Amino acid sequence: MARTILASPTQEVVIGFDQPFVMIGERINPTNRPKFAKELAEGNYWRVIAEAKKQIAAGAQVLDVNVGVPLTDEAKIMSEVITLLQSEVDVPLVIDSSVLDALESGLAAYKGRPLVNSTTAEEESMQRILPLVAKYDCAVVAISNDETGISEDPDVRFEIAKRIVHRAADYGIKAEDVVVDPLVMPIGAINSAGRDVFRLVRRLREELGVNTTCGASNVAFGLPNRHAVHNAFLPMVQASGMTSAILNVYDEGLVPAIKAADMLAGNDPNCANWIARSRPKPVEGAEGEGRRGGGRRGGRSGRRG
Amino acid sequence: MARTILASPTQEVVIGFDQPFVMIGERINPTNRPKFAKELAEGNYWRVIAEAKKQIAAGAQVLDVNVGVPLTDEAKIMSEVITLLQSEVDVPLVIDSSVLDALESGLAAYKGRPLVNSTTAEEESMQRILPLVAKYDCAVVAISNDETGISEDPDVRFEIAKRIVHRAADYGIKAEDVVVDPLVMPIGAINSAGRDVFRLVRRLREELGVNTTCGASNVAFGLPNRHAVHNAFLPMVQASGMTSAILNVYDEGLVPAIKAADMLAGNDPNCANWIARSRPKPVEGAEGEGRRGGGRRGGRSGRRG
Repeated sequence: MARTILASPTQEVVIGFDQPFVMIGERINPTNRPKFAKELAEGNYWRVIAEAKKQIAAGAQVLDVNVGVPLTDEAKIMSEVITLLQSEVDVPLVIDSSVLDALESGLAAYKGRPLVNSTTAEEESMQRILPLVAKYDCAVVAISNDETGISEDPDVRFEIAKRIVHRAADYGIKAEDVVVDPLVMPIGAINSAGRDVFRLVRRLREELGVNTTCGASNVAFGLPNRHAVHNAFLPMVQASGMTSAILNVYDEGLVPAIKAADMLAGNDPNCANWIARSRPKPVEGAEGEGRRGGGRRGGRSGRRG
Repeated sequence: MARTILASPTQEVVIGFDQPFVMIGERINPTNRPKFAKELAEGNYWRVIAEAKKQIAAGAQVLDVNVGVPLTDEAKIMSEVITLLQSEVDVPLVIDSSVLDALESGLAAYKGRPLVNSTTAEEESMQRILPLVAKYDCAVVAISNDETGISEDPDVRFEIAKRIVHRAADYGIKAEDVVVDPLVMPIGAINSAGRDVFRLVRRLREELGVNTTCGASNVAFGLPNRHAVHNAFLPMVQASGMTSAILNVYDEGLVPAIKAADMLAGNDPNCANWIARSRPKPVEGAEGEGRRGGGRRGGRSGRRG
């Protein structure tokens, strides 16, 4: 049973078959956000910290950190952002870059055990990324495409994932430290995209024994009411055995959907987390305000799951 | 590939592996509703019609009809209600009773092909219900318990369902006309209840080739924020291959969750239903009010999926 252990100096998060689903916040990412990109290029990181804290408050257990802005020294920015983030928040981080130097400088700056995002099965990618993952004894996201691109055939994607897992083993990286992204295609383009992923996730779990993740926002690309699609998609991949995802924890209803699905998948013993979530919030400014995570107060009107 | 065909004089609904999930409205049922029970006992059926129309408007494709009130002539009430309903609404109906005479009078009154709810694997139940189903050439819900009660072991429940399917065949009833209810236990009492059902539904579909249904409201019994649990549970059973459920279509967010899951399960070709649902509603009272199901009108603000 795969257990991928991610850690900061003060927190450990386990991605695993019998664990609550791990929500990785996707919002530290300047793609299509020109203000954010400009700030990063200028070494102004206030938004990184703001997004980190806001995502954690919304339920993220891990944060993806992507600081990719063209024509910048991404390695320098990554190193600075990782150091700053680790001084401000406690959760483990994902070091996310397509630039090898940025991954390496992020790894060098990071305290604990991060997740590297990502390698594909392309030879060049594996030869560059896997030695780094081995050197820093961390975990890695394995994306199931290779030089020929992304196959529409989920059985081909399974074989590609298997190839990465085997290659990682050659570098001394255990299968449980390879978190496979089976690649979620937009359902608006490929009608079997959901079904393919459900089947693929089951095979990856049962036959290859690995944890899985995905970029959850891709499935609803181009469709109306994307939130409602995400809110159904996550429980469905959880029912299929997926163990983590990179997602927008601000999506209305998404965190409760994932927490309910945890319970329904048998990963919330005695429904304890679900019941705790449903307790009324402590009233701000009331007596005992300073008590964090305080108990039941103020009537029966529950906080929306 | 199982196709359970239900019909009224004017509408056919197919429960099937490649069909959109069939939502059976549960609200025509006086259990724990004393006013409703009193009205039924007095032969006052206004609420039956109101609940029927409201559920259809909310998305129900089929309606469960339960008129069980102690110390009444349930057979007479069932016959009258079925006749009245079929004069007022077009959808196929489920004839739901624990009283054999009420099932028989409902079947005699019904025009089309109903679903009978239900038989268990208890000998007495099968010997009474299955001949009726055969006589009226209709479909039947098979509940996977027997004289020994409800097993917590899903493999036992599978074998019990199989026994009903085989017995039904002895009466000339095809497997595709047996819709198995694998029995959803409350997750608050049995932590593996969700996981058990997901596995059981897959086995029933893949090994026994039958359609499945359930009383969806049971899973969250006793828990807070039940709606949020239902909204995650349905996509999860749909991902596992369940093809229908008896449920409360008024639950906030439930119908969009099921429709999104249909699309993600590959049962909404080209996402056509999803996209059509997301179009703005025609404005009431505007020009062309009389046109039912009219097209796109009135700006971009979508009806919530």
